[in-house]
Amino acid sequence: MDDFAIAKQCRDTMYDGDAALQLLDISVEVTATGCAEARFEVRRDMINGHGVCHGGCLFMLADTAFAYACNSYNKVTLAAGASIEFLRAAKLGDQIIAIATERHRGRRSGFYDVVVSNQDGEEIALFRGRSHSTQDPLFT
Amino acid sequence: MDDFAIAKQCRDTMYDGDAALQLLDISVEVTATGCAEARFEVRRDMINGHGVCHGGCLFMLADTAFAYACNSYNKVTLAAGASIEFLRAAKLGDQIIAIATERHRGRRSGFYDVVVSNQDGEEIALFRGRSHSTQDPLFT
Amino acid sequence: MDDFAIAKQCRDTMYDGDAALQLLDISVEVTATGCAEARFEVRRDMINGHGVCHGGCLFMLADTAFAYACNSYNKVTLAAGASIEFLRAAKLGDQIIAIATERHRGRRSGFYDVVVSNQDGEEIALFRGRSHSTQDPLFT
Amino acid sequence: MDDFAIAKQCRDTMYDGDAALQLLDISVEVTATGCAEARFEVRRDMINGHGVCHGGCLFMLADTAFAYACNSYNKVTLAAGASIEFLRAAKLGDQIIAIATERHRGRRSGFYDVVVSNQDGEEIALFRGRSHSTQDPLFT
Repeated sequence: MDDFAIAKQCRDTMYDGDAALQLLDISVEVTATGCAEARFEVRRDMINGHGVCHGGCLFMLADTAFAYACNSYNKVTLAAGASIEFLRAAKLGDQIIAIATERHRGRRSGFYDVVVSNQDGEEIALFRGRSHSTQDPLFT
Repeated sequence: MDDFAIAKQCRDTMYDGDAALQLLDISVEVTATGCAEARFEVRRDMINGHGVCHGGCLFMLADTAFAYACNSYNKVTLAAGASIEFLRAAKLGDQIIAIATERHRGRRSGFYDVVVSNQDGEEIALFRGRSHSTQDPLFT
Repeated sequence: MDDFAIAKQCRDTMYDGDAALQLLDISVEVTATGCAEARFEVRRDMINGHGVCHGGCLFMLADTAFAYACNSYNKVTLAAGASIEFLRAAKLGDQIIAIATERHRGRRSGFYDVVVSNQDGEEIALFRGRSHSTQDPLFT
Repeated sequence: MDDFAIAKQCRDTMYDGDAALQLLDISVEVTATGCAEARFEVRRDMINGHGVCHGGCLFMLADTAFAYACNSYNKVTLAAGASIEFLRAAKLGDQIIAIATERHRGRRSGFYDVVVSNQDGEEIALFRGRSHSTQDPLFT
């Protein structure tokens, strides 16, 4: 298997057990080793008390892109920490995309930047995730 | 109305419009001005591809405690950014509580620390949120 | 004056009053509006108790690149917060460069990413700064 | 040796090799295992282009308190990352203190909160540091 085939197999392995994706109707693809994209539409039940998309839902989208990006090497890799900056509100019906790219990958820890944008290409949030990888394979 | 009555009225005002809470069955109370607690039980549909609670769900719980804490002054206050450190996995059926306390409140921006723990008192995550308050009242 | 001439004038205005740069022999240039580069050599008096360059010195270098990047619009702009991830140790005699680029600039707040590297192009640290701009001009 | 004696010996071991402390005339003490305090006075050569103390100097003070706190177990422990929020400007002649306390200590990684205040007890900055410990002793 080449690297990209491994990355896609990792995605499929995780996807099957990932109940949380259904919760927000998130779709996710790996686009290369270390890179992934996740999408959702802002539904009525993602709206918070201020009438806009809950920041936690945006985090979850970004975190998903991050998780699939850092798990594309066939090593079980966990989110160790993350930060997010909210730039603009997301509104009901918006089509949101989170694009994760790898910034650094060391022996155990990695750093991934995720940009969250809406259908007009406006940036909604910036996310930076830190991963910790184990030596266990995701699939054999 | 005294400060705590105002804080509770803010909570009720936000709660009614907060569709996102139903998504994860989060309950939330303000415990004092600037302080709030949010709880949920880890359900099967919060489990990620590694078999533990999705970090995004834990973020959402912490973010909720933070949002209700910083919105307890009857000024519409938005999450501007946040960071989270994941210390321990949360598992299916765990009872998780997020306790938000105010660390600093300036004219516009505020900082809130949230500790996320499980039913055994073990710390699951540390969260720090940054808020930006407007001059608009939450209720009149 | 065109934008780049303004940016360079901002740099010169700040540089004259910036005693802290002498402390670490930092040199700094703006390379475009919103972008700046800062450099130093790791001196013996920057070494910490573990025998490598003090993380605080690396932060200071990155923070300097950030400050000159966000102050290139002729509006007094302050650092509001920052995060740094240390990837690799910097050693005595290393030539370190910090390159700041603008990630987002809103009405008041901005976000800047800074990459800190050594003379071999190895990444030493990743920094993300958040700025808050006033309406006061840096120079008239 | 009891724990506090070990902590103080760690401090002395690091202090001797810590050239960077002289740079800013920082004094530092461990107050308990996992806790430390660092102090300096804002000198003229710490002033930045806006006429206030360089944020990088405040970071360095907080980072020092953090370093001595996480190195109090006689295991060589490195700063892996940190975030800082600047709340208030520090001015020429201010007496600044940074107090580090341990928030969490796992097998390898630890989290430390540092509060930076001035002589009037006003909070200047909030810092959170993440450490990574090796198995090597600081002293034998």
